[in-house]
Amino acid sequence: MPFHAPVEDFRFILEHVIGFSDVAATACHAEMTSDVTDAILTEAARMCDDILAPLNRAGDLSGARLENGVVRTSPGYAEGYRAIASGGWVGMAADPEHGGMGLPMALATCVNEMMGGACLALQLNPLMTQAEIEALEHHASPDLQALYLPKLISGEWCGTMNLTEPQAGSDVGALRTRAEPDGEGTYRITGQKIYITWADNDFSDNVAHMVLARLPDGAAGTKGISLFLVPKLIPDAGGRPGEANSLRVVSLEHKLGIHGSPTAVMEYDGAKGWLVGEPHAGMAAMFTMMNTARLGVGSQAVGVAEAATQAALAYAMDRKQGRAGGSGAIVEHADVRAMLARMRAETFAARAITLACAKAIDLGREGRAAETARAALLTPIAKTFGTETGINVADLGIQVHGGMGFIEETGAAQFLRDARITAIYEGTNGIQAMDLVGRKMMDGGEAAFRLFDEIEAGAEAAREMVPDLAEPVWQAAEQMREATEWLVAREVSARFAGAMPYLRAFARLLGAHYHLQAARAGNGKRKRLAAFYIQRMLPELSAHLAALRAGEGCVMALGAEDLTP
Amino acid sequence: MPFHAPVEDFRFILEHVIGFSDVAATACHAEMTSDVTDAILTEAARMCDDILAPLNRAGDLSGARLENGVVRTSPGYAEGYRAIASGGWVGMAADPEHGGMGLPMALATCVNEMMGGACLALQLNPLMTQAEIEALEHHASPDLQALYLPKLISGEWCGTMNLTEPQAGSDVGALRTRAEPDGEGTYRITGQKIYITWADNDFSDNVAHMVLARLPDGAAGTKGISLFLVPKLIPDAGGRPGEANSLRVVSLEHKLGIHGSPTAVMEYDGAKGWLVGEPHAGMAAMFTMMNTARLGVGSQAVGVAEAATQAALAYAMDRKQGRAGGSGAIVEHADVRAMLARMRAETFAARAITLACAKAIDLGREGRAAETARAALLTPIAKTFGTETGINVADLGIQVHGGMGFIEETGAAQFLRDARITAIYEGTNGIQAMDLVGRKMMDGGEAAFRLFDEIEAGAEAAREMVPDLAEPVWQAAEQMREATEWLVAREVSARFAGAMPYLRAFARLLGAHYHLQAARAGNGKRKRLAAFYIQRMLPELSAHLAALRAGEGCVMALGAEDLTP
Repeated sequence: MPFHAPVEDFRFILEHVIGFSDVAATACHAEMTSDVTDAILTEAARMCDDILAPLNRAGDLSGARLENGVVRTSPGYAEGYRAIASGGWVGMAADPEHGGMGLPMALATCVNEMMGGACLALQLNPLMTQAEIEALEHHASPDLQALYLPKLISGEWCGTMNLTEPQAGSDVGALRTRAEPDGEGTYRITGQKIYITWADNDFSDNVAHMVLARLPDGAAGTKGISLFLVPKLIPDAGGRPGEANSLRVVSLEHKLGIHGSPTAVMEYDGAKGWLVGEPHAGMAAMFTMMNTARLGVGSQAVGVAEAATQAALAYAMDRKQGRAGGSGAIVEHADVRAMLARMRAETFAARAITLACAKAIDLGREGRAAETARAALLTPIAKTFGTETGINVADLGIQVHGGMGFIEETGAAQFLRDARITAIYEGTNGIQAMDLVGRKMMDGGEAAFRLFDEIEAGAEAAREMVPDLAEPVWQAAEQMREATEWLVAREVSARFAGAMPYLRAFARLLGAHYHLQAARAGNGKRKRLAAFYIQRMLPELSAHLAALRAGEGCVMALGAEDLTP
Repeated sequence: MPFHAPVEDFRFILEHVIGFSDVAATACHAEMTSDVTDAILTEAARMCDDILAPLNRAGDLSGARLENGVVRTSPGYAEGYRAIASGGWVGMAADPEHGGMGLPMALATCVNEMMGGACLALQLNPLMTQAEIEALEHHASPDLQALYLPKLISGEWCGTMNLTEPQAGSDVGALRTRAEPDGEGTYRITGQKIYITWADNDFSDNVAHMVLARLPDGAAGTKGISLFLVPKLIPDAGGRPGEANSLRVVSLEHKLGIHGSPTAVMEYDGAKGWLVGEPHAGMAAMFTMMNTARLGVGSQAVGVAEAATQAALAYAMDRKQGRAGGSGAIVEHADVRAMLARMRAETFAARAITLACAKAIDLGREGRAAETARAALLTPIAKTFGTETGINVADLGIQVHGGMGFIEETGAAQFLRDARITAIYEGTNGIQAMDLVGRKMMDGGEAAFRLFDEIEAGAEAAREMVPDLAEPVWQAAEQMREATEWLVAREVSARFAGAMPYLRAFARLLGAHYHLQAARAGNGKRKRLAAFYIQRMLPELSAHLAALRAGEGCVMALGAEDLTP
C-alpha cells in the first residue's frame, strides 16, 4: 500500500486554519514565502513516499537485533537514514549557525509527521536527535556546542535520551545513576537506564547519549539531578570519534511494535561524560528536550493515523462485496463510510492541533509570552490527542479491513502495534493530562480562557457562512469555559481524577474549532468533513465533562477489593 | 501473571442481577440448584486457573504451524484440550441423549467466558465444536446425529465452520463452492474456503467440517446455499475414522493474535459430504450455529477483559513509584485508578449482558416467544459490546502497565492482540449493528420497548435504596425509548449510518441497568462500582444518540475525494 504524504492538507492547514502567515511575518522566518514552504513540503514528501514508506514493513518483519553487543538495524534503514540526513531533515529546525536549516517548528512538524507516517520506527531516530540538538542549543557550553551540534545536525552522529531506570518509571526523581567528577573537568557516569530508544545503530559514526545522573552533592529527588553528554566513542581534539567509552547495550526489548527501532537497556560503567548546563539543573534541560519531543510524538502518531486512513480507504474502495450499492465496494456501506469519515475527520483535527501548538512555539521564540503560554497549554493536548488519534484511527483501519485487518500481510495491524507506544513514551498520556490540569493551570486558566475567547470569536465569524456548524462550536467553548472555571477552583490533587476527560473534551473543542475554520475558508469538501465532526463527534465533549464533574470521589472510593471480581 | 476465574462474580450476577432462578425454575433445568451451579463453576474454574491459563503465553510464542500439510499445535495445547474434553466442557450444553451435560446456556456461557479468559486461542476450538453440535441437533438427520454427536460432544472429534470464500467476505451469498450429488446419497464438495478457525489439529481423532456450498439447482444468492458435513477422515460403518477425504489445509495465516489457533485456507476437491437439513436451506442451519457462536464470541472477549483487568490491577498494586501516595504503588494515582475502575465496571457490564442474553436463550427454548425475541435482540449487542469491551479493556491494561505494557513479556499486549479478532469474526461488529437496527427491529421495536419497560421498573424499584443512581438510569431508558421510536420510523437503509452509535447507546443503558440492580442487591462494593459506571460512563449514551440523530446524510455525503487528504 503506497503512502502519500498529505502535502495539500499541510498547505491548507498552514494557510487557512492556523495562520502560519503570522510566523512568516516574523523577522526570524521572513524567508518563509509560500513558494519556499511548498518546495520544502514537496521535497520532504518525495523522500517519504519513495524512500521511507517502502521500508516500513521490512522493519516490522526484520526488527533491530543485538549481535555480540552490536546493534544491527533493519534492511534498508541505513539508506533511509542517509536520505533523511543528507536532505537536512535531522537538523531542519536547528540554528543555521551550526548547519541547521532554521525552519519554523510549524514546518518541521509537518515533515516529522510525514516521516512518521511513512516509517515510524526509523523516524524516531532523528526525532531523538532533534530533541538533543535543542537541549544543547539552550544549555550546553559553547565548546560542547561547537563540537557536537554540527555532527548531530548533519546526521553524522545520532542522539538519545536516557531518563528511565528500572526502579523509576515516570518518577524520574528516583533515579540512582551516579556522576563522579574525575578531576579533568569531566565526570564518570555509572548506572543502568532502560527504554532507551535508538540506543545504538550501525549507520552513524557516533552516538551522543544525554544521560540524567546525580552528582555526589546532588539532593534527593528531581532537584539533585544533572544532565550529561556521554558519547559512545570519545571524540579526539579534532572531533573525530576515537576511543570507545565505558558503556554498552545490554539487551533489546521484544516489543509489540516499532520493531525497527532498537529499545535498549544501557549500562554505564564509569563512562566519561560532560556536564550540560549547571549542576543539579538537569531536569530543566531535560524538559527542553521533552517538550519538543512531546509535540514530536503527537505529530508522528498523526502520521500513522494518516497512513492508516489512506490504507483503509484504498482497501474499502477496492474490496468488492455483492450487497454494497453503487460501486459494489465496501466503501458504499454506511458503517464503513462512517468509520472512514471518523478516521479522516480525527486525523485532520489532530494535525491542526499539533500544527497550532508548533506555531505557538515559533511565536513564543519571538518573545511573545502569551504564545509561550499557549504552547505550554497545547503541548500535553497535542501529545495525548495526537497519540490517541494514531491508536484509535489505526484500530478503525483494522476494522475497515475486516478479516484482512487481522492478517499481518496487509499492514493494517502494524499501524496499531506501532502507534500503541506513542501514548506511553515521552510521558504517558496520564502524565500529560496531569500536566494540563496542574502545572498548565497555574495561571488560573488564563491561557485557556484566552483560547476560548478566540474560538468564540472564530465561531462568530463563521456564523454567516456556516451557521449550523458555528453555533455548536460556540456552545462547546462556553461549556469548556465553565468546566475550566470549575476545575481551577479545585485543589490540584482533586483535579487529577478528571484530568483525562478534561483533556479529551479540550481536544474535541479544538478539533471542532479548526474544522469550523476549515469550513469557513475551504470548499464543499471541508464543509462536509466539518459537518461530520461537529455533528457526530463534538457531542462527545459533554460526556467527557460529565465524567470530569463526577469528581474524584467516585474514582478514589474504589479500593483494590472493589476492583477484584 | 496467574488468572483466577471470577466465580464469585458469576454467582452474584446469576443470582442477583439476571435472575437465573427463572431458568432453574423450568422443568428442563430443575436440577440447577445453587449447589449444583456452584460445583460446576468451581470445577471449571479449577481447570481454567491451573491448566489452561498457563498455556496462554506459550501458544502466543509458539503458534500453530503447518508442516507437510499437517497442523502442529502449540506446546501443551493437546493436554489442555484433553482437560476440556474429559471435563465434559465441549458438550456441556448439548443434549444428554448424545452424552451432553445439558447445562443451560447461562451456565455454559460462564464456563466459555472463563476458558476464553484463560486461553482464548485454545478455547476457540471447543467453541466451534459447540456451534456445530447445536446445528446438528437442530437440523441433521437422526443417522448423522447418531454418528457424529457423541464424538463431538465427548471431544474425540472437533468441528469447524466453513463460510467465507476469497471473493465473498461478509457476503455469504456470493459463495462459489459447489456440491454435486454422487448417486450414493452423498455429495462431492469442491471449492476453497478461507479464515477457517481450527481447521485441523494434532490432538483429535477426526475433524468434522460444516461447509456451505451450492447444489447444481441452487439459486444465486443465499437462497441457493446448502449445508454439508464433510469429515476429514470418512467414518466407517462403526463410526471409526477411516479413509482420508479429498480436502486439505492449504496454508495458515500469519495473524496479529491468537497465534495458537490455526486459521486456515481450506481446499475441498470433490470431498465427500453429507447434506445437513433440507437442500437450499443451509443459511438457516448456519444461522443456528452463528447465533450461538456470536454470543460465545462476545463472552470469550469478556473473558479476555477479565484477564487483562486482573493483570493490570496486580501490576498497579505491585509497581512502586515515589510520588504516589498511600501504598506508594501506582494504583494510588487517580488516573491509574480511573483506568482500572473503567476496566472493572465495563467487564461487569459486558458480562451481565452476555449472561442476560444466555438466560433469554434458555427461556426461549421453553417455548416463550418473548424470550426468543429478547435473545435475538440481545445477541448482536452481546457480541459487539462484549468484543469492544475485550479490546478496550485490554488497551487500557497496556496503558496501566506503562512502558512495560509495550514489552511482550508482560502479556498485556497479547490480550489486545488476541481480543482484536473478536470484533471481526462471526460477523463483524458493523454487521451486528446492521442486524440490530434492521432485522431485530422488524417487530417495530416491540422487544426493545419491553426491555425499556423492565429497566424503568427496575429503576423505580431501586429509587428507595440508591436514588442518585436510579434516576439517571430511568432517564437513560427514556432517551433510548425516544431514540428507538425515531429509529423505527425510518427506512431500514436510512438506519445503517447510525447503527453502531445506537448499539453502543443500547449497551450503555443495559450496563447501567445491571449495575443498578447489582447496587440494589449487593454491598458497598457493588454500589461504588455502579456509581462509577453511572456517573462517569453512562453519560456517553447521549453522545452516541447525538451521532445517531445526525442522520445518514452527514455520513454518506462524504465521498472518496472528501476522505482523501
